[in-house]
Amino acid sequence: MTEAEKIKVHFKPDNVEIVVDRGENLLEAAIAAGVRIYASCGGSGTCGTCKVTLEKGEVETTRTNKVSDEEFSQGVRQACQSRVLSDLTVYVPVESRLEKAVISRERERVSESLATGWRFRPPLTKYFIELPPPTMKDNTSDLSRLLRGLKKRYSLSNMSVEFSVVRKLAKALRDGDWKVTVTTLVTAAQPGAKGRHEPKLINVEPGDTRGRHYSLAFDIGTTTVCGQLLDLNRGRVIADAIEFNQQISFGQDVISRIAYCQKPGGLEKLQQAVLNSINTVIDELLKKKKVNIEDIGHLMLAGNTTMTQILFGLDPVHIRMAPYTPVANFFPPVRASSLGINVAEHVHIFAFPAVSSYVGGDISSGVVGAGIYQRPELTLFLDIGTNGEIVIGNSEWLATASCSAGPAFEGGGIKHGMVATIGAIEGFRIDPSTWEPSVTTIGGAKPRGISGSGLINIIAALLRAGAISQNGKFNPDLPTERIRPGTDGYEYVLCRAPETQTGKDIVLTEVDIDNLMRAKGAIYAGCQTLTTSVGIRSTAEFNQVIIAGAFGSHLDIDASITIGLLPDLPREKFIFIGNGSLLGARMTSFSTDLLDDARRVAQMMTNFELSDSVDFMNNYVAALFLPHTHAAEFPTITKELSRLQKQRARQGG
Amino acid sequence: MTEAEKIKVHFKPDNVEIVVDRGENLLEAAIAAGVRIYASCGGSGTCGTCKVTLEKGEVETTRTNKVSDEEFSQGVRQACQSRVLSDLTVYVPVESRLEKAVISRERERVSESLATGWRFRPPLTKYFIELPPPTMKDNTSDLSRLLRGLKKRYSLSNMSVEFSVVRKLAKALRDGDWKVTVTTLVTAAQPGAKGRHEPKLINVEPGDTRGRHYSLAFDIGTTTVCGQLLDLNRGRVIADAIEFNQQISFGQDVISRIAYCQKPGGLEKLQQAVLNSINTVIDELLKKKKVNIEDIGHLMLAGNTTMTQILFGLDPVHIRMAPYTPVANFFPPVRASSLGINVAEHVHIFAFPAVSSYVGGDISSGVVGAGIYQRPELTLFLDIGTNGEIVIGNSEWLATASCSAGPAFEGGGIKHGMVATIGAIEGFRIDPSTWEPSVTTIGGAKPRGISGSGLINIIAALLRAGAISQNGKFNPDLPTERIRPGTDGYEYVLCRAPETQTGKDIVLTEVDIDNLMRAKGAIYAGCQTLTTSVGIRSTAEFNQVIIAGAFGSHLDIDASITIGLLPDLPREKFIFIGNGSLLGARMTSFSTDLLDDARRVAQMMTNFELSDSVDFMNNYVAALFLPHTHAAEFPTITKELSRLQKQRARQGG
Repeated sequence: MTEAEKIKVHFKPDNVEIVVDRGENLLEAAIAAGVRIYASCGGSGTCGTCKVTLEKGEVETTRTNKVSDEEFSQGVRQACQSRVLSDLTVYVPVESRLEKAVISRERERVSESLATGWRFRPPLTKYFIELPPPTMKDNTSDLSRLLRGLKKRYSLSNMSVEFSVVRKLAKALRDGDWKVTVTTLVTAAQPGAKGRHEPKLINVEPGDTRGRHYSLAFDIGTTTVCGQLLDLNRGRVIADAIEFNQQISFGQDVISRIAYCQKPGGLEKLQQAVLNSINTVIDELLKKKKVNIEDIGHLMLAGNTTMTQILFGLDPVHIRMAPYTPVANFFPPVRASSLGINVAEHVHIFAFPAVSSYVGGDISSGVVGAGIYQRPELTLFLDIGTNGEIVIGNSEWLATASCSAGPAFEGGGIKHGMVATIGAIEGFRIDPSTWEPSVTTIGGAKPRGISGSGLINIIAALLRAGAISQNGKFNPDLPTERIRPGTDGYEYVLCRAPETQTGKDIVLTEVDIDNLMRAKGAIYAGCQTLTTSVGIRSTAEFNQVIIAGAFGSHLDIDASITIGLLPDLPREKFIFIGNGSLLGARMTSFSTDLLDDARRVAQMMTNFELSDSVDFMNNYVAALFLPHTHAAEFPTITKELSRLQKQRARQGG
Repeated sequence: MTEAEKIKVHFKPDNVEIVVDRGENLLEAAIAAGVRIYASCGGSGTCGTCKVTLEKGEVETTRTNKVSDEEFSQGVRQACQSRVLSDLTVYVPVESRLEKAVISRERERVSESLATGWRFRPPLTKYFIELPPPTMKDNTSDLSRLLRGLKKRYSLSNMSVEFSVVRKLAKALRDGDWKVTVTTLVTAAQPGAKGRHEPKLINVEPGDTRGRHYSLAFDIGTTTVCGQLLDLNRGRVIADAIEFNQQISFGQDVISRIAYCQKPGGLEKLQQAVLNSINTVIDELLKKKKVNIEDIGHLMLAGNTTMTQILFGLDPVHIRMAPYTPVANFFPPVRASSLGINVAEHVHIFAFPAVSSYVGGDISSGVVGAGIYQRPELTLFLDIGTNGEIVIGNSEWLATASCSAGPAFEGGGIKHGMVATIGAIEGFRIDPSTWEPSVTTIGGAKPRGISGSGLINIIAALLRAGAISQNGKFNPDLPTERIRPGTDGYEYVLCRAPETQTGKDIVLTEVDIDNLMRAKGAIYAGCQTLTTSVGIRSTAEFNQVIIAGAFGSHLDIDASITIGLLPDLPREKFIFIGNGSLLGARMTSFSTDLLDDARRVAQMMTNFELSDSVDFMNNYVAALFLPHTHAAEFPTITKELSRLQKQRARQGG
C-alpha cells in the first residue's frame, strides 16, 4: 500500500489552508479546517446549501439538480459531493457561509422568569472552614477531620464525598494552613425518590475562595449553543455568549444529525462538534469577565433529546425510528471533563430530563422556568423551530406533543431562506397601492436572504394586501412587475440584485408559501389535536400562551395569527420568554427548589404521539390555508381579511 | 543535547535483557526488566539485600560497608548503588532473588469465619428481567422502561443509575430482545448515616447472565497481594492466587515505601507496581477457572493504610510524620478501571476503612471477619508482621494500637533471614545432649535462609536447650563447634555450606537474637500497654486470642510464648484465622449485613498512639528478655525453663 497523496486545499475568503489525503470529501475538509459551511441536509447532496466555487484545481464531483449548467460551468460545486483530486483554491460564497456573529437579540418583552415561590439557594454551595490542626491526641484522618468540622460548624452530615476531593485533601489542608473552602452539590432527586439526596462534597480548596463562586447554564440547541456565566454569590447572569452548534455543518435538523450518526464514526464527530462549541462559549464567557476556569463549579444544561444524547455519546438512532424511544428520560450526573468539556475535574453536568424523543430537556426546562406547573390557569406553551413542541396544562396536569414543522422557520426549503443572522430580511411592509415592498434586515445590512420570522411577516403582509390569496397563490393579475413567473411558479421580488449582498434577486416563491403553510399548519394542527385530546374544546380556552425559543422571540404576534400559526386570542394573552431552555437551566442553578421540581415536572408531562393520529392528519389538512380552512378558528382574522378585501374592492372599483 | 547512549543489560539466570540509558540505576533496570530483586531498604544502600555479581561490563558504584573487599573483588555490587556504564551481564544470586512461587500454605487450624448472624446476601446482585417492547402507545425511554420493569418485578425502586449503564442500555435491550440481566450494587453506608444507600444499577447485559456472577476479594499486603475469585451464586471461593507485591523491589516495609513515594514519580511507580501485582493475580484467578473478565462485578479489598493510599494514588507522606495522619479513614467507591485494574468498566472497588495511619483496613477487615465486635467475651486480636497491630475489645467497645516490630519477622535485619518462601528454615529441633540441629524447610528444599517463624522456633529451642541464656547470649562454653565466634558476636551454625542452596553456612547470630527480642518485645509491650490503657489488669483476662496474618498462621504457639511474643495463656484460647484481611474482604462480598458492619466497626475502634507513651517504653524495655524481665508475666514458661535447667544441671552433674 502506498501512502495517501497529500493535497493542499485553500479556502477563501477565510484564507485558511488544510492538507488532506487525495480523495477526501471537500465538505469534511472544510469542517476540519474550521471553515463554516452551511450544509442543511448533512452532506447528502439534497439541499444545495454547501455550494462553493472552484478557483483552482480539480475535484471529482457527483452532480445533482442543485447545480445548474451555468453554475457548473462557472466552477460551482456542492462541497459535500466533491472529492479533492489536486491542490485546490475554493471560494465559499456568502450564502454558503455560516457567520460567527449570530445575534443574540434581547427584546424588552422577554420576561426573566415566570416561576414563583422559589428561594435563592443554589445547589452548588461553598463553605469556608478553619480546622484544628492534628495533634498526637487527635490524629484522625484528614477527611474525618474535615467532615467533623463541617458537621460542627455547618451541621452538614451524611455527606458523600467525591474521590477527587480525597485526592486533593491533604495538600489543600496544609497549603491553606487548615483553612479551606469546600464546595458541595445537591443533585436532583431520583424520579420517585422521597426527597432529595444529601449534598455531595465535590471540591476542596486552600484558603477562603467563597468570593469566586460561579456556574454555567447552557442551552444546547440544534442550531446554536447559548451559554451564561452565573455569579452564584449575587444570583446574577454576568456574561452571555452564543455560538453556532458546530454540528450544523453536518446537517441542519435533528433528523439529518441522527442520520449522520449512523455513519462510521459519525456519532463521535457530532459529539466532538458540539463539545467544541460548548468549549468555545465557555472560553468567551470566561474572557469577558476574567473569571478563572477553576472557579466554575457546575454546569446545568438543557437541550432537545437528540442534542442531549449526542452530547453524552448516546446513539440517537431509535429517536428516528418508530416507536421513537429515547435512551433515557433522565441522565445521571456526568463529570464534564470526562466528556471533554474544558472545566475543572469536579464539575458535573446536570442535564434537564426529557419527556420523549421529541419533547426534550429544553422543553421541561422551559416549563420549569415559566412556572406553568405552579399555576391553576390553563396555559399553552409553544416552542417553535424545526420541530414545534407544545405543552398544555396547569398545576394539576401537563400534556405535551411535538410535531415536525420542517425547516421553513429556520430558512430551510425556502428558496432564499436563511438562519436569522445579519442580512436576513425580517421586517416587511408593502404599499397596498403599488405593491412595492420596504424591507428591514437583521443588523441593518444589505439583504442576503429571508429569516423565518421575516417569511411570516412577508406572507402575512402579502395576504393582507391581497397579493396572495388564502390558498397561498399569487395574484398574477396585479399591475406590478414584482410578481412574475419563476422556476417555482409565480414569485414576488423582495429585493433586486443590485440591492443585495449576493448580487442576485431575492424572491418569495409559491413553493416557499406552500412550505410555510405546511410548517404553520403542522404547528397549529398539533396545538388543536393536543387540546382536544385532553378534553378541552378549543384553543380559545387558554388563559395564557407562552412562546419560547429564539425563533418565537422574534415572531410578530399579529402576523403569526394572520397566517394561522398562533391561535386567534387577545394579544395580551401572549407572553414571550425567549430561550426557555436557557431560562430553566439558569433558574435551577440559582434555586434548589426549582431543581427539585425539574424531574417531577418532566414526569408530570404526559406525551401524546401525533405521528399516528388520524385527528392530527385531519387538522393538518384543514390548516393548509391562510389562516385556516375553518374560518371560525380565526374569527378576528377572517373579519379583518374580509374588511381589507372589501376596502380594496371599493378602492379598485 | 545529544541522545542518551543506549546500553544492554543482560540478567542471569533469568536470561532477560533490557536496553537502558547509560547511567541508569541497575536496580531500576532490573525492576523494569521484570527481574525480581529483593531490596528491603528500598534502594537506599543500607540493607545489602540487592547484591548482584557483575560477569561482564562496567558499572559506577557507590561502595558501602555491605560489600566486603573480597566480595567487591569478585564483582559483587549492590544493584541500588550502581549505575550502568557499558553493556552488562549481571548474575542475580539466589539470596537476592524474589521467587515467584510464594507458598500459600493452608493450615487446618485456620477457621473460615468467626463472624455469626449474617445472611448470605451479597451486595452485588443480578436480576433477570423481560420487558415489554416499546410501542407507539408506550414509547417511554429505554431507561424508564427498565426501571419500571424492575420496580414491578422485583420491587426495586429509588435506584440510582451509573452513567455507563445508560451508555450500554439501548443496545443491550435490543440485542437481548428486551430480555436483560442487570447488576445492582449496594454500597456501604456513610459513617453516621442512617441506614444504607439504596442499590445502584451498575450494569446491564443482554439475555440471562445470572449463571455467571463473580467477584474478587483482595488483601493488599506490604509483601504479598492475595486474591480470591468468589462465585456469588454459590457463596464459595473458587480460586486463590497470591503474588509478591511488586513494590517489594522498592523497599520491604511501609516506611521505605513512603520514603520512596517522596522521590519524583515515586508514588506513581509504587502505585503501578501494586496494580501490576493485582492484575497478575486477577489473570491467574480467571485462568484457573476459565472465568471471563466481564463476569467479575465487584472488588472488595483490604490493606494497611499505606498500601491502600498508594493503591489509590494518595501520597502517604503524613503517615510517616508525627502526628501520623492518614488522608482518609474511608474511601468513596472508585471505578477499578480508572486506576488501571483490568476489569470491566462497571466494577467498583470497596476498600475497607482504616482506623489510623498504622491500623488499617486490613485490621478492620480482620475484626469484621473474626466477628470480635459481635461477642461479649473479651478478645485480643493480633496481626503480627513488620508492624504489630493489636485490637482489644468485645461487642461494647474496641481499642486498637500498633507498634513497629521491625523487619525481623519477615527476615529483615537477620543475617540469614528471608521471607517465608521455598528453602526457608522453619522447623528446628536440637539434640539437647549434642546441640546438633535438625532443620526442616518450606517446600522441603535445600536450606537458603531462616523464615520469621523459623527464627522464633530456633531461638525458643536454643533457649530451652540452654544454648542461649534468657538475655539472648550464647553459652560459649558448651562443648559444640556449632557455637562459634562470628563477625556479629557468637553465632550458631544451623546448616553447613555444603548442605545449603547458597553454598555458605547458615547461622544465627547474637545480633539476630537481639533483633528478635526487640521485635517480640515491641509486640508484647504493645499488648500490655493497650490492655492496661483500657483498664484491664493483665493479659490473663482475655477469653480468646485471635492470631491473624500470614506470619501468624505459621507461628508455633508454644515457641512464641516461650520467647515472650504471645501472652502465657492456655493454648486452647488461641485461634488462628490466617489472612484476616482477606477473610473480611471475602465475607463482606457474601454478606451485605457484614458490609454494613464494616464502617461501623472501623468507627467503633478507638486508636491509642503508643509512640509517645511512657508506659509503652517501660513495658518495652522490660520485654527485652526471654521471655520477659518480669517472670510473673510468663508463669508456665518460667516454670518450664527452670525445670529444664534443673534437668540439665542434673544430667550434666
